[in-house]
Amino acid sequence: MKEFVLSYVKEHQHNWKTQPLIIEGEDFQDCIMLVFGKPRTAVFTHIDSIGFTVRYDNKLVMIGGPETETGFILVGEDSKGKIETKLIADPNAGFLCCDFQRVIDAGTELVFKSEFVETGESVQSCYLDNRLGVFVALQLAETIENGVLVFSCYEEHGGGTVPFLVKHLWENYKIRQHLVCDITWATEGVKPGEGVAISMRDSRIPRKSFVEKVISIAKEHSIPFQIEVEGSGGSDGRELQASPYPVDWIFIGAAEENVHSPYEKVNKIDIKTMLKLYDVLVNKL
Amino acid sequence: MKEFVLSYVKEHQHNWKTQPLIIEGEDFQDCIMLVFGKPRTAVFTHIDSIGFTVRYDNKLVMIGGPETETGFILVGEDSKGKIETKLIADPNAGFLCCDFQRVIDAGTELVFKSEFVETGESVQSCYLDNRLGVFVALQLAETIENGVLVFSCYEEHGGGTVPFLVKHLWENYKIRQHLVCDITWATEGVKPGEGVAISMRDSRIPRKSFVEKVISIAKEHSIPFQIEVEGSGGSDGRELQASPYPVDWIFIGAAEENVHSPYEKVNKIDIKTMLKLYDVLVNKL
Amino acid sequence: MKEFVLSYVKEHQHNWKTQPLIIEGEDFQDCIMLVFGKPRTAVFTHIDSIGFTVRYDNKLVMIGGPETETGFILVGEDSKGKIETKLIADPNAGFLCCDFQRVIDAGTELVFKSEFVETGESVQSCYLDNRLGVFVALQLAETIENGVLVFSCYEEHGGGTVPFLVKHLWENYKIRQHLVCDITWATEGVKPGEGVAISMRDSRIPRKSFVEKVISIAKEHSIPFQIEVEGSGGSDGRELQASPYPVDWIFIGAAEENVHSPYEKVNKIDIKTMLKLYDVLVNKL
Repeated sequence: MKEFVLSYVKEHQHNWKTQPLIIEGEDFQDCIMLVFGKPRTAVFTHIDSIGFTVRYDNKLVMIGGPETETGFILVGEDSKGKIETKLIADPNAGFLCCDFQRVIDAGTELVFKSEFVETGESVQSCYLDNRLGVFVALQLAETIENGVLVFSCYEEHGGGTVPFLVKHLWENYKIRQHLVCDITWATEGVKPGEGVAISMRDSRIPRKSFVEKVISIAKEHSIPFQIEVEGSGGSDGRELQASPYPVDWIFIGAAEENVHSPYEKVNKIDIKTMLKLYDVLVNKL
Repeated sequence: MKEFVLSYVKEHQHNWKTQPLIIEGEDFQDCIMLVFGKPRTAVFTHIDSIGFTVRYDNKLVMIGGPETETGFILVGEDSKGKIETKLIADPNAGFLCCDFQRVIDAGTELVFKSEFVETGESVQSCYLDNRLGVFVALQLAETIENGVLVFSCYEEHGGGTVPFLVKHLWENYKIRQHLVCDITWATEGVKPGEGVAISMRDSRIPRKSFVEKVISIAKEHSIPFQIEVEGSGGSDGRELQASPYPVDWIFIGAAEENVHSPYEKVNKIDIKTMLKLYDVLVNKL
Repeated sequence: MKEFVLSYVKEHQHNWKTQPLIIEGEDFQDCIMLVFGKPRTAVFTHIDSIGFTVRYDNKLVMIGGPETETGFILVGEDSKGKIETKLIADPNAGFLCCDFQRVIDAGTELVFKSEFVETGESVQSCYLDNRLGVFVALQLAETIENGVLVFSCYEEHGGGTVPFLVKHLWENYKIRQHLVCDITWATEGVKPGEGVAISMRDSRIPRKSFVEKVISIAKEHSIPFQIEVEGSGGSDGRELQASPYPVDWIFIGAAEENVHSPYEKVNKIDIKTMLKLYDVLVNKL
């Protein structure tokens, strides 16, 4: 993913309104930051994915929280070659394995096989969470004048890169405003096709004053949005909240159906309003 | 709460023995620190509260860990006006809502309605945890010569301000000693009216050498206290423990009955001994 | 433990190839760091232990996650003298106490009584986790030329020292490579006597590029090792991962049977290969 983003940037940046400073390398592990102009706001999109690690005898443990349904197709590669296999899951017994014909190297990572389906109305694929966040960030790159686009890792599994990213952003640019550009759940309160979700809370609660500022900007610009209020779930916001800097954060993103499965599905209206809202917020905040 | 504390300080500080440096503003979010003299010790009192966030269709999610009993009266305000409503809870089903006659704006915060009852022996109200900690800190302000009074946020829900507060205190004053001035639970080992509780542990364990120092000072000054030993629960101490500074912390506070309900009740002897112990510790530690 | 390590160092360091800088004192609480030469890699061994805190009426709460079986012998000391007593446990009811003939001071710590058994093949005792890690580090001290040996605390219970240790190591030496020198579980995939375990993951997942580097060095040097892949469990690696520095970490250690009981048992082959691998890694990484 890092290589993909870097090569995309190299290929397209000559068309961008503002040329970014590209921050990456050993001190940033597998993360990238694109710094445009004089930034006041950072947009966090995570580039890691949920999946599985092979244990012994083709048993599996989870990376993040994937859906586990017998029959899901998994792909990967180990020292003996390419792997395509089926998931076998007994959630009640907490049992997970795959039915590959040979023993896969312990430690091998398996991910859902992509079956991309696009219609006039929606896109469907595994890993829209958070490839769509990355898509929005890279679209934003074309016109953004001031701001940082951050591509983070480990969001799906325990965190660990946001702490050094937010440290760098605070110490070098004193950035206080962080937008978590990620995909959320369709629920009874956030429905596909009714606009990007602005999350007032999940397991963590962002500061009310910042949430209200974001909502009033969305209203002023007549961007269709939905309010999300959840009691669980988390994002890069969790580590932004825990950081030793007085920063604000908020989660803003389209909602998907079939969360963390091979069939994540997002309505295009929600993607378009997500992009539109980010475009406005990066300029107005 | 921030405004209340700031205006209280402005109104009363002319009577205080020592004039504090008042630290607040954008870099400290909704927190305040009062720095007196040459501080060696900081007293942490949290100013946030438990409660509920309204979800969709008047369903609720918790802020922190409130007691949930059908009939508790909740108050708040949204775009359509003031709200006073009853909690309806089915803890087994994990179901929480309120019975208000119209749909409340999603994201609205509701808190317990205060019914303050004072007798010769005790005070009873919601939010004694941690308004009493704030009370003790503001009493302490009258005579303290050296020390910091810290008013923190997010203690009840995931934390997030202690990291930047302790960073400031370490980098500017090298403060190593932190007292968590908060309210705990009455139990079979900590009984109302038998003195302030000194906690030897909750879910986290403070350093033995520091705990023993505090206990020996309490004994020397003949302040009635009780030892608390719990296996669960937490406080601002959790984030002080996790901070990247070699600081010590200990929880010291009165115990309450009816924890996190509208009927939190504290014996006045425990409040008086709490204040007395803080007064001694800030001077002697 | 701190005093033991410091006095061991003082007694033996004249025989060591390189003289270390000894970092300890108030700014490092009960931790010690030995810095040899120009370090690129740090070896973390925790010196704390699981056990029990006495509550009221000889009831107990756990420090870390000890096995609790009625009959285990516990030892300690309080204001009234030495204590040797038996654990009484009803895990289903979550009930823990000890059967001592008098009431033990609340807050007293009890630990498993050591019954050390050594055979040609193995060692057995409580607290091999992590006295064996300390043993390996102190053996390593004899020949190490460049590197840091870190003796940390609170690994078994909530953490809290790794944050300031890794901060010091980053700010003073820019150390990026951290090896967690600790004891793991014998499982169906990691068997006693088949070599040190290199953990590809537990509840946290270290960076693949670093894990692969370590494995390839172990292979090059023909050191017998086993790959561990777990979905749960944790170590000092958890806090290294969460730190605001772009550091890598990996858990490498012998596996034990009877984890967190008085009868932890480790095969000597696994100890020898553990030491050998650390010796190679500190030089080659």
